[in-house]
Amino acid sequence: MPDKKKAVVLVSGGLDSTTVLAIAKSQGFDCYTMSFDYGQRHKSELHAAENTAKLLGATSHKVIKLDLSAIGGSALTDLDLAVPETETSPGEIPITYVPARNTVFLSIAMGWAEVLGAKDIFIGVNAVDYSGYPDCRPEFIQAFQAMANVATKAGVEGKGMRIQTPLIFMTKGEIIQKGIALGVDYAKTVSCYQANDLGQACGRCDSCRLRKQGFEQAGIEDPTPYQN
Amino acid sequence: MPDKKKAVVLVSGGLDSTTVLAIAKSQGFDCYTMSFDYGQRHKSELHAAENTAKLLGATSHKVIKLDLSAIGGSALTDLDLAVPETETSPGEIPITYVPARNTVFLSIAMGWAEVLGAKDIFIGVNAVDYSGYPDCRPEFIQAFQAMANVATKAGVEGKGMRIQTPLIFMTKGEIIQKGIALGVDYAKTVSCYQANDLGQACGRCDSCRLRKQGFEQAGIEDPTPYQN
Repeated sequence: MPDKKKAVVLVSGGLDSTTVLAIAKSQGFDCYTMSFDYGQRHKSELHAAENTAKLLGATSHKVIKLDLSAIGGSALTDLDLAVPETETSPGEIPITYVPARNTVFLSIAMGWAEVLGAKDIFIGVNAVDYSGYPDCRPEFIQAFQAMANVATKAGVEGKGMRIQTPLIFMTKGEIIQKGIALGVDYAKTVSCYQANDLGQACGRCDSCRLRKQGFEQAGIEDPTPYQN
Repeated sequence: MPDKKKAVVLVSGGLDSTTVLAIAKSQGFDCYTMSFDYGQRHKSELHAAENTAKLLGATSHKVIKLDLSAIGGSALTDLDLAVPETETSPGEIPITYVPARNTVFLSIAMGWAEVLGAKDIFIGVNAVDYSGYPDCRPEFIQAFQAMANVATKAGVEGKGMRIQTPLIFMTKGEIIQKGIALGVDYAKTVSCYQANDLGQACGRCDSCRLRKQGFEQAGIEDPTPYQN
């Protein structure tokens, strides 16, 4: 059997990261998936992450516990802050932004990649149909990769690390079309910021709105289980 | 009372980070200290961190739980790997290196700084009398700061983040002299990789060796409580 390349793939159980996992697999990577139990409002996305990782053939799935709610500042980790159900004004960073979240997740993924001897880390950030978070932009990814290459043994030894963001310039509709072509079952993914224990979506938060629009753009019937 | 500047200070309970906290205080910062319960071999450094933070007048001290042992690869978090008691060859990265540790710690500190509205993050890295870890070098710190400035709301709004490393070019002896001048009680700090529950040091690991040499360099009697 030919030697497969290893990659760490960050998965949240949502639409984007599940598509990223399908893309990494289609490129021949041996995928090590990683999720975070970081104090988010619901656990159904963690179940979805584990389930979709298995369905898409991940080699190993790891859940890291990390209490980001201890630093506060986000409606996604602080139950005293309500998840907004109306659109944020253009240019404004919404209250659902979790400070440093992607940086922290990528840092831990970088540590695992180093232990595994993997050069590639996949993350489902998107700078088109996105929520305006600073750590979803290409300039952030470039800066993180530059940092990773001086932060690690692999970097020091000149082997390099690559932060792969296959979705970064795709619309939500294009992401969905790509995933469907690769056999992703989106009914098993959870994107909603306030899903219930059954993984059913609210249909009203920012994340639900972007996802609904994506299925409309793609011309594909929305298979999301909604609460009502 | 004049408005104080806020800073997040990473403290491990060891000699270096305790000195950094004393320096940050002496520069007039209102210090928010942060430690990590990351699966290290012993908890006495966490007690030392809390204790020294209080003694040096930190405004608030936070301990973040994060299981880095889940990714493995280091003698500091994996009980199956022995802590070496002989010196590592020059140029070699020792087994006590925890992959991505400083990157992960700085990322979470960056998140807290953002929530607090602090621009400054202090970390006790040192590129002189150090263990050869890639994430203790100035090029890493510069790359991290560049990344922080595109990763965060504060960065996007042009307010900037500063990673402060006052010890980076100091010898261990100079660090100790500086700390003594600022009133640090080094008997209350724990540097040892395998200290016992009382915080007594082994006297043999890499960290103990560097610390002992530091007191010799500084011409100051070593107040460290040793196991024998």
